[in-house]
Amino acid sequence: MVRHFEQDLDALRGQLLQMGGAAEAIVRKSIDALRRRDTVLCEEVFADDHLLDRLEIEIEERCVTLLARRQPMAGDLRFITAALKISNDLERVGDHAVNIAGSGIKLASEPPLKPLVDIPRMADLAIGMLRDALDAFVRGDAVRARELCQRDDQVDALNDQLFRELLTYMIENPGNVTRSMELILIARNLERVADLATNVAEEVVFIAEARIIKHHAEETLSGGRPGDEDFGRT
Amino acid sequence: MVRHFEQDLDALRGQLLQMGGAAEAIVRKSIDALRRRDTVLCEEVFADDHLLDRLEIEIEERCVTLLARRQPMAGDLRFITAALKISNDLERVGDHAVNIAGSGIKLASEPPLKPLVDIPRMADLAIGMLRDALDAFVRGDAVRARELCQRDDQVDALNDQLFRELLTYMIENPGNVTRSMELILIARNLERVADLATNVAEEVVFIAEARIIKHHAEETLSGGRPGDEDFGRT
Repeated sequence: MVRHFEQDLDALRGQLLQMGGAAEAIVRKSIDALRRRDTVLCEEVFADDHLLDRLEIEIEERCVTLLARRQPMAGDLRFITAALKISNDLERVGDHAVNIAGSGIKLASEPPLKPLVDIPRMADLAIGMLRDALDAFVRGDAVRARELCQRDDQVDALNDQLFRELLTYMIENPGNVTRSMELILIARNLERVADLATNVAEEVVFIAEARIIKHHAEETLSGGRPGDEDFGRT
Repeated sequence: MVRHFEQDLDALRGQLLQMGGAAEAIVRKSIDALRRRDTVLCEEVFADDHLLDRLEIEIEERCVTLLARRQPMAGDLRFITAALKISNDLERVGDHAVNIAGSGIKLASEPPLKPLVDIPRMADLAIGMLRDALDAFVRGDAVRARELCQRDDQVDALNDQLFRELLTYMIENPGNVTRSMELILIARNLERVADLATNVAEEVVFIAEARIIKHHAEETLSGGRPGDEDFGRT
């Protein structure tokens, strides 16, 4: 029974990693499609998103079944509730890639507004955060996860800078408005991907430390860690 | 023991309703602040958001404790996993209200671009969806929840219409660019609130029917409903 449960958890971990890999890949593809002005690749992003949707449902089903059948406690329980949230975060990463690909299709039909420099840089940062969050998740490395949350500020700063720059393009020339708008929306989508990577990192800390660091609360769970308690069914 | 567990679930339900009420109120306040050009009211929105952050953490703690101590099965298990997700959705509603209030502050320092008609209408629709989703949640009314998911299309249509209109304002006059941009971002935040209300409604259907309707999957859980199964610990 115990070994079966370990196998179940390993399978869940494997599925989350698969989903994480798919989430990184879809963001990467959406930005490649944008750079190459490749509408066929943009369409591929729409198709790839269905894989993420399917994986989320599979992970949800697995978690609910595990909770019901195995009635896990302490660390395992935290791991499973965190898995539910991480799968939801990764599914939303896919939605943002779809938005980027949608903008990519619109932009491919018009001449480039300016060379794409900041957007690929934001994408690299956001994808790197996603990869590191999943890596921290596999290793249960709360220190790395915590460090990662701070990198989100870099992405926010790039987003603000790009927003201001693109506003000036719009003001200078009405012909720039629609293209600038699409680039602003793309940058916001990347900024959200970085936020979602931060959410995943927060869950890693939660699993490792039973500590909710969201909203900078930095409070331990009231009444101590569930793992420290006696869960005898009274 | 059974009665205690019922009381625990009632307390969780009550806390989710409280959070739902706070989510509706904060969106309402952000739009009121925008209409009245009242920066003090905008600042209040920032403060109110902390209540939602705190409620999310409290609900998370309660859910994890319930899962660990009570080891619930079937319907109760689904209810608790859904509560985890609903509290996360409602917390994000607060973030969108904060974004709207931030735009409200920027817009209050400039003359109005145009009378606000579509944005309050979108807000009414989104808030109505949020209220109905929570109402469906209390009553366990999957029919109502399902109907609600379709109303999301109206909000999306209004958002598209407003986006196109505001683009023309930007193109006509560079002096309109920054204000139009803020209004576009406000509309997108409201559109996301409606999406989150839809998420809540999907969870209600999930609780009621053990059916995941996300991503239009419309598939029953593989292996039948958890509630129909024998969860003997083997």
